[in-house]
Amino acid sequence: MTEHADHRYMQQALDLARRGSFTTRPNPMVGCVIVKDDVVVGEGWHVRAGQAHAEVHALRHAGAKAQGATAYVTLEPCAHHGRTPPCYQALIGAGVARVVVACEDPFHKVAGRGIAGLREAGIDVHVGVLRSQAQALNKGFISSARRGRPWVTLKLGMSLDGRTALADGQSQWITGAAARADVHRLRREHCAILTGIGTVLADDPALTVRLDDPQAFVPPWRVVLDSALRTPHTAQLVDGAVPTFILHGVTGGQAPRGAEGIQVASQGGRLDLLDCLTALNDRGVHSVLVEAGATLAGALIQEGLVDDLVLYVAPKLLGSAARPLLVGDFASSLTAPPGLRLVTAEAVGEDVKINWRSLRSESECFAP
Amino acid sequence: MTEHADHRYMQQALDLARRGSFTTRPNPMVGCVIVKDDVVVGEGWHVRAGQAHAEVHALRHAGAKAQGATAYVTLEPCAHHGRTPPCYQALIGAGVARVVVACEDPFHKVAGRGIAGLREAGIDVHVGVLRSQAQALNKGFISSARRGRPWVTLKLGMSLDGRTALADGQSQWITGAAARADVHRLRREHCAILTGIGTVLADDPALTVRLDDPQAFVPPWRVVLDSALRTPHTAQLVDGAVPTFILHGVTGGQAPRGAEGIQVASQGGRLDLLDCLTALNDRGVHSVLVEAGATLAGALIQEGLVDDLVLYVAPKLLGSAARPLLVGDFASSLTAPPGLRLVTAEAVGEDVKINWRSLRSESECFAP
Repeated sequence: MTEHADHRYMQQALDLARRGSFTTRPNPMVGCVIVKDDVVVGEGWHVRAGQAHAEVHALRHAGAKAQGATAYVTLEPCAHHGRTPPCYQALIGAGVARVVVACEDPFHKVAGRGIAGLREAGIDVHVGVLRSQAQALNKGFISSARRGRPWVTLKLGMSLDGRTALADGQSQWITGAAARADVHRLRREHCAILTGIGTVLADDPALTVRLDDPQAFVPPWRVVLDSALRTPHTAQLVDGAVPTFILHGVTGGQAPRGAEGIQVASQGGRLDLLDCLTALNDRGVHSVLVEAGATLAGALIQEGLVDDLVLYVAPKLLGSAARPLLVGDFASSLTAPPGLRLVTAEAVGEDVKINWRSLRSESECFAP
Repeated sequence: MTEHADHRYMQQALDLARRGSFTTRPNPMVGCVIVKDDVVVGEGWHVRAGQAHAEVHALRHAGAKAQGATAYVTLEPCAHHGRTPPCYQALIGAGVARVVVACEDPFHKVAGRGIAGLREAGIDVHVGVLRSQAQALNKGFISSARRGRPWVTLKLGMSLDGRTALADGQSQWITGAAARADVHRLRREHCAILTGIGTVLADDPALTVRLDDPQAFVPPWRVVLDSALRTPHTAQLVDGAVPTFILHGVTGGQAPRGAEGIQVASQGGRLDLLDCLTALNDRGVHSVLVEAGATLAGALIQEGLVDDLVLYVAPKLLGSAARPLLVGDFASSLTAPPGLRLVTAEAVGEDVKINWRSLRSESECFAP
């Protein structure tokens, strides 16, 4: 098989994996293509946690044709009896001759065992085809396995002069309708949406996904950092529609009905942000979208806890007396070397959406 | 001739016109294609003011084949004896049967006379193919003819939190090397680069085009808004390398050697900005790139004198104590309805370059 063909079939497997976007959480997205004599004989992808893995779907599809075939898998086949039996054994059982893997599975119950098991069975295994694409697809899953905390995306919206609200706090509709709809697509991609108590008290957001799009998705959970448990019982996000966590620092404190309180470490009335992320990770939250005010957003940046920064810039001017995007002193933060890498810049209506990614986060999560 | 063919040949003429970028000033860029029996028999573009127009080049190229042919011209053929004889007469003399024009020439000595002259000679004239592309190509020329002032592009560079310098004024290298090189390409597209005395005193900029690119260009002129004539004799931009204007408000005032002083209206020590632009227009400046500090940039916006806004956003954070992008109160300015239209958003290294355009400027310059 040529290198070119390996790339082409792995690309196809990645496209299949993406069909599981929004539904596989907390499991990773995985795609699998089975190829025999340069013909695709099986395709599969992981649809939903608890259901069959990508390899199982593809092997079923291929049937007897899997014998002597090559399997392309976007993530190392699993090696543990979870809710489904180990996939590497299924591949061996089906008689595939060769397995091409995009990236290793860092989850401690797999972590090389899938690949080793295949090799022990005499199967030719090639690892690393389109690795970085495959890793980026499951950055939350990988962050959780390798760092014990979710991948954090900070969403910010501002006027072109870097302001978020007039001096009196008026902030509605800085970005346009297209950008506001895009934020709902962004929400859909994450395990949880996180905000601060300041935003809850000021704006009473629902933090739900509202989209005119029939595609199925697992609704993201909601998280409030609320050190003194001030979330009102009447807040929209404790309506019970979606699992909601109130992270607080009050021993014996009680979250409003419709939410689960989690006590985390705090000091001087401020929650320990890394402890917050760890607590969420322990509950299966692998990716978090932060939609917060200038103070919480600034603190996350200052502590080096922002992995992706998504900035919407609107063609408005609020003037130099208006409220700043971020509060803080960032001399030794996100933008210190190695700093940020530009991932995408694109038009969203008349606004511009920019995604920068922390190079440190990439090396923590994706380096070999 | 089909509509599709008309578009195709006009696109070719526009591509030819663009070869005159940087050299035709103060004349417009113009391209011409002569087509006979669906074969291109002549091509030409305007290279430099004082030399032959696009039509003349294309007709020479076509020779006798122009008889009965169709001429595609990106701008209405001229009707006046300037430094060259009228092009519409050259087209009639060559015996072309049909002329397709992208946009009218608003210059008062042409202004429809070229098209009328062709029609009076019995030539079939079709106007408006790819009009908006042709207008955008010569926005400075059109702005000058229709508004009596140059097209103003305001260039801004900032950190992702909308800041331009640390609180102590340190501002070097916010944007990356690629963006800094791009600014030199932006300079090359303009008749003049304009700055304020504050920037001259703080940074002593040369405001010249420095590019590793062999393409010929007419060096843009330099302009300082300097109400009290404080530009030092030692400033880089009065080195005499390029025509340089010091706009001031001092009766009988004297600009440093190497620059020409121009007195404009002023009030309370502040120059009248529209009067500054009119004075530049009178000297043949049709497009101005503004590279100025937060005060002058803010004032131009507040007075509705910015047509294009080019913003470079760098992946740096300077914090909420750092200096703002713009000083001013913009409640009824550039971003009030009809506001700004997004033209382009693109990566330039790790920075993002955004171009928004004033809808009012477009309707003033390009509306029929």
